[in-house]
Amino acid sequence: MPLVTLTTDFGNADYFVGAMKRVILSICPKATVVDLTHELPAYEVGEAAFVFEQARRWFGKKTIHVAVVDPGVGSLRRPLLVEVDGQYLIGPDNGIFSTALGKPGAKARAITNEKLFLKPVSATFHGRDVFAACAGHLAAGLAPAKFGKLVKDALRLNLGTNQRISKRQWSGSILRVDRFGNLVTSLSLAEFGWLADRPFELVVGFEKVAKRATHYAECEYGELYAVMGSAGFLEIVLREGSAAKRLGVASGAPVDVTGW
Amino acid sequence: MPLVTLTTDFGNADYFVGAMKRVILSICPKATVVDLTHELPAYEVGEAAFVFEQARRWFGKKTIHVAVVDPGVGSLRRPLLVEVDGQYLIGPDNGIFSTALGKPGAKARAITNEKLFLKPVSATFHGRDVFAACAGHLAAGLAPAKFGKLVKDALRLNLGTNQRISKRQWSGSILRVDRFGNLVTSLSLAEFGWLADRPFELVVGFEKVAKRATHYAECEYGELYAVMGSAGFLEIVLREGSAAKRLGVASGAPVDVTGW
Amino acid sequence: MPLVTLTTDFGNADYFVGAMKRVILSICPKATVVDLTHELPAYEVGEAAFVFEQARRWFGKKTIHVAVVDPGVGSLRRPLLVEVDGQYLIGPDNGIFSTALGKPGAKARAITNEKLFLKPVSATFHGRDVFAACAGHLAAGLAPAKFGKLVKDALRLNLGTNQRISKRQWSGSILRVDRFGNLVTSLSLAEFGWLADRPFELVVGFEKVAKRATHYAECEYGELYAVMGSAGFLEIVLREGSAAKRLGVASGAPVDVTGW
Repeated sequence: MPLVTLTTDFGNADYFVGAMKRVILSICPKATVVDLTHELPAYEVGEAAFVFEQARRWFGKKTIHVAVVDPGVGSLRRPLLVEVDGQYLIGPDNGIFSTALGKPGAKARAITNEKLFLKPVSATFHGRDVFAACAGHLAAGLAPAKFGKLVKDALRLNLGTNQRISKRQWSGSILRVDRFGNLVTSLSLAEFGWLADRPFELVVGFEKVAKRATHYAECEYGELYAVMGSAGFLEIVLREGSAAKRLGVASGAPVDVTGW
Repeated sequence: MPLVTLTTDFGNADYFVGAMKRVILSICPKATVVDLTHELPAYEVGEAAFVFEQARRWFGKKTIHVAVVDPGVGSLRRPLLVEVDGQYLIGPDNGIFSTALGKPGAKARAITNEKLFLKPVSATFHGRDVFAACAGHLAAGLAPAKFGKLVKDALRLNLGTNQRISKRQWSGSILRVDRFGNLVTSLSLAEFGWLADRPFELVVGFEKVAKRATHYAECEYGELYAVMGSAGFLEIVLREGSAAKRLGVASGAPVDVTGW
Repeated sequence: MPLVTLTTDFGNADYFVGAMKRVILSICPKATVVDLTHELPAYEVGEAAFVFEQARRWFGKKTIHVAVVDPGVGSLRRPLLVEVDGQYLIGPDNGIFSTALGKPGAKARAITNEKLFLKPVSATFHGRDVFAACAGHLAAGLAPAKFGKLVKDALRLNLGTNQRISKRQWSGSILRVDRFGNLVTSLSLAEFGWLADRPFELVVGFEKVAKRATHYAECEYGELYAVMGSAGFLEIVLREGSAAKRLGVASGAPVDVTGW
């Protein structure tokens, strides 16, 4: 049974998601449709790209993922079909698949076969008329090559790339503010795991963070800490509180780190 | 397999929706229960009526829809079973089915067969004890006539009816504020499609809107635009922002339009 | 088919819940996973305990419930497996199962069999690596005794226990603020049902409540009322408004009642 997942910023209060599901199921009745999340921050493509990639890796081969955070809907930005890790990714060519596109063997197609779309195509709801419809056809067995030609210029945003500023200083960014107000930084375990044993100082918003903990309950109340999070990135946290509110920062904000 | 959909303002943070599902499944174990939305604005029957009708048209014949936004729960307002477009609608007689009731062939029954209800009927949770229970019995095959007699006085709210004020002026209203803060007006494509080619001016809140776009990315940042939305109604939008917050208006607010 | 329910404060905006589901299904592919709620207030174990217990009673024997509101994740607090009413409860030993643990025949095991966990165990996401994994193994048929030994000191919070202060006065608390801002008190129908026929006065926040109604539409707008709620507890409500906002109180706030 084909599995189709949905990731959007459409919220759960409207009929938008329901309409997408009906379109998929009307084209491929045997598909199983699974919601990843519809509560991504509106219009934030970069943050969506991070959450989507985190979610995607829990799924197996042949999964069809539809991801739509799409402030450019109706403009000339292309619909995209990406093949990576044996999975299929459908969404706008606006950087939402940035991380996946950087993986070995990733291939992208610009979807140009308009016969696959729901007619008339609304200028404001491609989630339903373009992306859900294409996911339905893919789930029903249509070959990727029927969607359009391979392209090499799919948009990749500069997400989570850290810069070395000086011998002991790096500059990164906040990739995601999670539900608890924890700030997920671009400082990965792979690159910055050594911070676990060395003195360091993070600068974010107007505050400095120099304490670390392995888990939340180890932190003192009211103080900012750095914790290596479950996604493999350093997080800035406030025990039983919101580090995002305390610091007044959102995704995209810079994080500078000095380590000795 | 009978399909039952749920539309409420109960939110997703409580056990309310879970309880409704269990009641339906305990009466009709083979039913499939699908959530449309539980995040409708609390108590706003008119807005619920609009969203429900938008969602309903994506479903096929024999679908059983339960819709509960019900500030009058426990009072004398009647439970209703509506048959329309081959579908079944169950909810309070408070106008939530206003649009459906205006369709050709729509029939409404006042549900009076109290044997179908969960006992004791709570005075504050008919979603569970009355509406979910009735949906379960309908899904299990009980004939509509067993629920109660046909009535001709089911409540219809005056939703989205536009008034012509003068030769070139009409008065409408905001039917819905969507997740992005877009204002969905009562000005439909069918009636007001001609605004696409003619000069016009919308007055809403304390501002005037005279620009139009076919999609969001065509709008300049910071300026209000009129866009024909995917539901077939003119929307007032602010690019990557909330028109509702900018204008300080909610559903029900008046919209005046002048067109030349 | 084994049924596994999920109750958390993880929200629906992240990939957290999706990851938990994949872990359960990867260990027990035939399990059905049902969301109760993921929108519990962050870190509020007491409120979670109340909502979880309300939801749990709608499920049948053999249901496996995973409940994770866990500010102590990664610390020494134990993972717990509780058997009660023929159901299985998996979560942290922090009081989230307080009510269930007080039921006749309830048995608790400290989960010590680390072979069952996902490796490496993250210090901040036991919902995925410990609790979901254990639920998967239980669903797949592993006997409860394989998880760990029975313990008698599982944590029970003092939830919803009312104190008699004087002959006519009792002191209780707010157990839950629901989606509408209704305040669910600890005054149960069983203990305080007699308030329905006698004069009474509730003191909560800075206001007194002496009016009662059987349902919301019976209340005058703008005035606080006591209504016996559908969960069997007295609620303080404001017609089509939020009693919580009006009174400025949250769960845990004291409620004093005098009855004559």
